[in-house]
Amino acid sequence: MEEIRQLEQLKQMIEEKDMVALKDEVSRMNEADLAEILEELDTTDAMLVYRMLPKDKAIDVFTYMSHSQQLQLIDAITDQEMLDIMEDLYFDDMIDLLEEVPAAIVTKVLAAASPEERRQINEFLMYPAGTAGAEMTIEYLALKPEWTVEESMKFIRENGEDSEMVYTCYVVDEKNTLLGFVSLRELVVADDATLVEDMMTTDVIYVKTLDPIEEVAERFQKYDYLALPVVDKEHRLTGIITFDDILEIIEDIDTEDFHRMVGIGGDSDMDYLDESAWSLAKNRIPWLLILMISGTISAGIIKHYNPIIAKYIILTTFIPMITGTGGNTGSQSTTVVIRGLATGEIELKDVFYIMWKEGRVGLVVGVILSMVNFIRLMILGTDLGVSILVTLTMIVTIILSKLLGAGLPILMKKLGFDPALMSAAIITTIIDALVLVVYFNLAGLVLSYIV
Amino acid sequence: MEEIRQLEQLKQMIEEKDMVALKDEVSRMNEADLAEILEELDTTDAMLVYRMLPKDKAIDVFTYMSHSQQLQLIDAITDQEMLDIMEDLYFDDMIDLLEEVPAAIVTKVLAAASPEERRQINEFLMYPAGTAGAEMTIEYLALKPEWTVEESMKFIRENGEDSEMVYTCYVVDEKNTLLGFVSLRELVVADDATLVEDMMTTDVIYVKTLDPIEEVAERFQKYDYLALPVVDKEHRLTGIITFDDILEIIEDIDTEDFHRMVGIGGDSDMDYLDESAWSLAKNRIPWLLILMISGTISAGIIKHYNPIIAKYIILTTFIPMITGTGGNTGSQSTTVVIRGLATGEIELKDVFYIMWKEGRVGLVVGVILSMVNFIRLMILGTDLGVSILVTLTMIVTIILSKLLGAGLPILMKKLGFDPALMSAAIITTIIDALVLVVYFNLAGLVLSYIV
Repeated sequence: MEEIRQLEQLKQMIEEKDMVALKDEVSRMNEADLAEILEELDTTDAMLVYRMLPKDKAIDVFTYMSHSQQLQLIDAITDQEMLDIMEDLYFDDMIDLLEEVPAAIVTKVLAAASPEERRQINEFLMYPAGTAGAEMTIEYLALKPEWTVEESMKFIRENGEDSEMVYTCYVVDEKNTLLGFVSLRELVVADDATLVEDMMTTDVIYVKTLDPIEEVAERFQKYDYLALPVVDKEHRLTGIITFDDILEIIEDIDTEDFHRMVGIGGDSDMDYLDESAWSLAKNRIPWLLILMISGTISAGIIKHYNPIIAKYIILTTFIPMITGTGGNTGSQSTTVVIRGLATGEIELKDVFYIMWKEGRVGLVVGVILSMVNFIRLMILGTDLGVSILVTLTMIVTIILSKLLGAGLPILMKKLGFDPALMSAAIITTIIDALVLVVYFNLAGLVLSYIV
Repeated sequence: MEEIRQLEQLKQMIEEKDMVALKDEVSRMNEADLAEILEELDTTDAMLVYRMLPKDKAIDVFTYMSHSQQLQLIDAITDQEMLDIMEDLYFDDMIDLLEEVPAAIVTKVLAAASPEERRQINEFLMYPAGTAGAEMTIEYLALKPEWTVEESMKFIRENGEDSEMVYTCYVVDEKNTLLGFVSLRELVVADDATLVEDMMTTDVIYVKTLDPIEEVAERFQKYDYLALPVVDKEHRLTGIITFDDILEIIEDIDTEDFHRMVGIGGDSDMDYLDESAWSLAKNRIPWLLILMISGTISAGIIKHYNPIIAKYIILTTFIPMITGTGGNTGSQSTTVVIRGLATGEIELKDVFYIMWKEGRVGLVVGVILSMVNFIRLMILGTDLGVSILVTLTMIVTIILSKLLGAGLPILMKKLGFDPALMSAAIITTIIDALVLVVYFNLAGLVLSYIV
């Protein structure tokens, strides 16, 4: 509500060309809110408002914009304005942006950069996406072990403005080897004369440049630090990853896991609303094709049992229900296990315990569901033999579904693959086939005795 | 690997009763790692190691333990030790713990607390789970607007030790009304004589005590603050929520969304490994029952069309494949939309654009999948009429599945429900029925002409 009111107010000021009020209003607004409001304005008005912002604030607002919005803005401004923005962005934000902009802009930015900056930019653009290196920033504060608290505070005061993280300072030697860290909180509380090396924490939790970003996220969740240092093979400090970046990274990782559950591939940080239908379809088709073709197995099974179906046509009635129930119970176990592995709540060493637990859950669920169903079938006046068949099939397949649903992702992980590849969709397809085999085999047994 | 090595080392020291080496080792280890290692030891050894920790470190280690581990420890220690722990915990951690421990312990803690503390504890225990109030802590630093930077820094130095968040300080008047905030970074850089009220940011992003925690998570993701203030109805500062708590909260929210996708209810922060099979089953059965009973609709449809099935028994062969493909394509759209709504990437106002996009994605996916399938059927030598029937059914149902899959969660949200209630599992069940109706109706048309 508040944002809509602000948007209407800004629009009115623009319309009335009340530039004084406009300037006053935008200088008071929050940066993230401004970024959102700019997205709602047309390009001319957005540019007008953007150019009205004080320089520092303009950069912050730019940082909060979506990538597509940033590209639009860069398209509309002069080269000099673009270079100014690039220069003022934090290093990791600039690298992120450079990965998206047309090559011509990258060339311009590189041309305007100092040789040292150019080397750094090129180096950073080389870290593969999805690694700690690709997400880190170089704007950290490095202290020397022999400095006093007073010297350190002076250094922070002088350099803190350009640093993305001032609350954790890293201690390095002359070769930039990571020795430890001190927090600003400790520095503020400490005596001025204390030496950094006497107060720094040396048991540093760090990540390596090529560590997958999932591991970085895990460390953040485990250790609750504001930032994690990133080191190279020689244990030299090459950058840091800060908590605000990790929030976005975790969101992207989880989105990717959600999408994988239903067989959607592709880049998780792409923007749904900006993607073409064709590129969305491209991410969804491969698994759908695999699943469809795997459906051939179920079709083959049904075909194989066509004689028994021809004899008891009523059997077809229950196919969607029993395959559906098997798929649903199996997906539950798969999802719990994949999510548990992702959050670290479940570990590979627990495999036997998990199987034992899911087996018992399957038994409880199987008995209750099949009993409810049996009563339902009786009320509906279904043939007793068929009702018994469906009930038995359900108990057996629910237990099997729980075991398979939990076991297959664990197996994938044991084999060194991403367990999320064993998505709920695949489990459902595998279970479909299994359920049908159980159903028709039991049908042969049960119906020949009872019917 | 590192952790296993540390664990083995500790075990050996305990066995050899080398208390000096043990004490030295644990005082150097990281707190989160220690919590994990304690979990691996039996209770006697864990208690031995725990009691060996310096007091400050012991509290930190305790904070990193899982709830079940904390309860076990509390069970094993003396009342006085328990009260010491409670006193040293940050307020929000203590409240979390009090919500879990037996009532007898709550009584002891309340008895040992000062009247003011008791009032606060009771008040906090009253905020409903899942609200900002239930997650906030009261250990923040509040500055007065008329203080200078020097006075503020002195205050922070003296009170920073007991505060969970020193990097963002809140400015309040004498009635505790929230006026603004300043960051420690700004204070460190500023002139000693500057007044707080002249440098504070007054456009404060805050949450209210009864705001749902999902909203708090969203604000954190949007605004990148280290902490958010929580205010009551009178805009008085009642507490803060810090970034490290939000990491855990986001993990829980996402886990809940994953579970809902496959129809698992219950509390997302319960511990899988510690729950009984029965309580796990209880969370999974309700939706499975609903889905199973809804399966009656599919069964009814098949039963209704039994005459046509009896005539063309081959039709049964393709039921799992077409319902499966419909379900899979529909779940993809559902998942993309539910996740997009959760992250804020998709908004309700985009509904027509989303439907238009999903319709086109459905067309692309439908044409490609059904063409591949048609070729496959031809190669397998399937009857032409049946092949055409299956192909037509697939195109129609894939487009419908995409539209329904995207539309139903949006509809749920429009009606004010949680869109995640429209889980992939339900969409699949609805689509199953729809697909069958399309299939058999087309069968009546196509087969009477062609076969």
